[in-house]
Amino acid sequence: MTEKMQVAGFKAGAVKAGIRGKDRLDVALIYSMVPAVAAGVFTRSEVKAAPVLLDMEYLRDGRARAIIVNSGIANACTGQPGMELARGTSRLVGRQLGINEEQVLVASTGVIGQQLELSIFENCMERLAASLREDGFADVAKAMMTTDTVPKTALRRVEINGKTVTMLGLAKGAGMIMPNMATMLGFIVTDAAVADAALRDMLLHSTRLSFNAITIDGDTSTNDTVLLLANGEAGNAPITSAGSEEGRIFQGCLDELCLDLALQIVKDGEGATKLITIHVKGARSEQEADQGARTVANSSLVKTAFFGEDANWGRIIAALGRSGISFDSERVDIFFDDVLMVKDGLGQDMEQEKKATLVLKQKAFSVIIDLKSGPADGKVYTCDLSIDYIKINADYRS
Amino acid sequence: MTEKMQVAGFKAGAVKAGIRGKDRLDVALIYSMVPAVAAGVFTRSEVKAAPVLLDMEYLRDGRARAIIVNSGIANACTGQPGMELARGTSRLVGRQLGINEEQVLVASTGVIGQQLELSIFENCMERLAASLREDGFADVAKAMMTTDTVPKTALRRVEINGKTVTMLGLAKGAGMIMPNMATMLGFIVTDAAVADAALRDMLLHSTRLSFNAITIDGDTSTNDTVLLLANGEAGNAPITSAGSEEGRIFQGCLDELCLDLALQIVKDGEGATKLITIHVKGARSEQEADQGARTVANSSLVKTAFFGEDANWGRIIAALGRSGISFDSERVDIFFDDVLMVKDGLGQDMEQEKKATLVLKQKAFSVIIDLKSGPADGKVYTCDLSIDYIKINADYRS
Repeated sequence: MTEKMQVAGFKAGAVKAGIRGKDRLDVALIYSMVPAVAAGVFTRSEVKAAPVLLDMEYLRDGRARAIIVNSGIANACTGQPGMELARGTSRLVGRQLGINEEQVLVASTGVIGQQLELSIFENCMERLAASLREDGFADVAKAMMTTDTVPKTALRRVEINGKTVTMLGLAKGAGMIMPNMATMLGFIVTDAAVADAALRDMLLHSTRLSFNAITIDGDTSTNDTVLLLANGEAGNAPITSAGSEEGRIFQGCLDELCLDLALQIVKDGEGATKLITIHVKGARSEQEADQGARTVANSSLVKTAFFGEDANWGRIIAALGRSGISFDSERVDIFFDDVLMVKDGLGQDMEQEKKATLVLKQKAFSVIIDLKSGPADGKVYTCDLSIDYIKINADYRS
Repeated sequence: MTEKMQVAGFKAGAVKAGIRGKDRLDVALIYSMVPAVAAGVFTRSEVKAAPVLLDMEYLRDGRARAIIVNSGIANACTGQPGMELARGTSRLVGRQLGINEEQVLVASTGVIGQQLELSIFENCMERLAASLREDGFADVAKAMMTTDTVPKTALRRVEINGKTVTMLGLAKGAGMIMPNMATMLGFIVTDAAVADAALRDMLLHSTRLSFNAITIDGDTSTNDTVLLLANGEAGNAPITSAGSEEGRIFQGCLDELCLDLALQIVKDGEGATKLITIHVKGARSEQEADQGARTVANSSLVKTAFFGEDANWGRIIAALGRSGISFDSERVDIFFDDVLMVKDGLGQDMEQEKKATLVLKQKAFSVIIDLKSGPADGKVYTCDLSIDYIKINADYRS
């Protein structure tokens, strides 16, 4: 039984605006019918797209009621005209919905360096508002796609203070995915009542363990954005801190939803055939665990070995060696799922290698690297590097 | 007219020792018939192969007379048995040639994590010594190859104090090539007379601008080694400092030879179809210029765009944005050779893009990125990322 993809007090819809040809949903809108608190996490790239800069400004007061998103053009590296276009877009939506333009967040994904025309949004605005429906989120997920092959959605329900709270998430992203997001967009709406500071804290926490713990190709985009709107329609007593009992329940649910969406992105990684968890244990610090895991997860040699289903652990050690973290290579253990392949820095026998190769033939597996140098651990999720990745990215604009 | 590939006082040779099947040269020897000074530059990976650790130890006195190299097995991640094997190999060579074993440097390249058998070297040692010839260097270059498709050699002659000095270089490397070398081996022999401290300084300088300024896939190997032997047979008054007039002449010649070899490696990069120079200008520091250029050069998205001959400058700006360096994206200019594609952060018209696309169709071109934020510049040399790269690396061990 599929649960209904809707959340009290929210509507959503999408239209074909002609940015990506005639027959593709490419502009979408999410709308809270009542005031909502909002939080965002954005790319840490030095080069931030216009919509990112605008949302950072609009979110200073922790309030938002709408998100307009387009695919096809990223509105990045577009200078002053790009900022004016983003502002103009939120103004159009605000006018159409009868809300303050600063309550309208904007997100874009697609090619960098091209200008969007405001007329595109003017021409579709009435149709877009008319498309809003309580069950319109599936269309939004479709309209956000670029090289994604499937729309990405997730739904969670949880009891908070005797009230059922619903959380609905949408995401897109398939390439240019690394540390601090990528052309990765994630939108989450919930009917929970949450204070804005707590919402921000909890979104940051969940993002660190999910959207910011995935990497497809090590590239971070100019447009990465995760937005969370909470409108309080569930009627729970507002959650005022992440540390409260209610906060912890909400946090657990949000962590789960974000990881669900993030893993959907990795599975749909450009050309990906496998989902791989790189789990570094026994590091001196969380920062080093993350850095080690990320370097392994981004190594082209490691990723092509995974594509070839080759338990080439030497490439894993080589990647760790250049990662800049401290460890003793003669203490390292490496497991593929539960198969011990390297013990104290030395490869195990052919028997073990055969077992490891079977692990690598699966669609999803874990590489557990125990540095035995400290107490910290960290996980990064990635995919393999395949021939299709090259085909997709050599041809993307043509 | 091809110049003779030989240097006064040196001999070289190679044999088929059976590490890589029966019909392949896989063990080689370089020998100075007279005492020589020597310097080395090694991988900065935290995980250093046994031969690297041994050479670092043996080079403390700045003297060496022989280099034995094998391909097929890297003798990396092999623990104590690997160290003993490396020591045993230099002992065998020392005994055969009648020189101290600490005068014999060792280098290995190939698969990580497998043990080499000393019997391989015992069995071929007499044949190896018998193979030594003044014109044997071409065979050494062949014996060093792994996924290389062509042997890599370079020869330079220069006048120093009225004497003709010869410099001969051999290199191998095609994958796992990044910053601080990779399974990249470079051996240079010269008949110049140079003091050991000056030799070390000059090798470091040349390496920084050549072997350490290339990247194929961002991976650094456990075995990277560049060795330089100078035996003084040219009869010049010894060069005692890099800053002297003779030092500058030698340095210029060494710089040129190392860059020649390094670019041969990039051109032969696994699956490479193009040689690309990433030149970052106007950075705040040399360190930032290098970091920016290296991040662009290693971006899978940038490299696949080059493979696709797509002037996708947005990916270049995105890579710079995540590189961790400081700059104002609205001031950046980007040229493909002499074609201005981005001015002050904004893409130029279709006319320019057509011209840029023509530049990208060449076998070799430069991307010049002017950050206009400071006085420093830096160059990194790389290749594109092709379908063949994946094929080569998914199948390497199978």
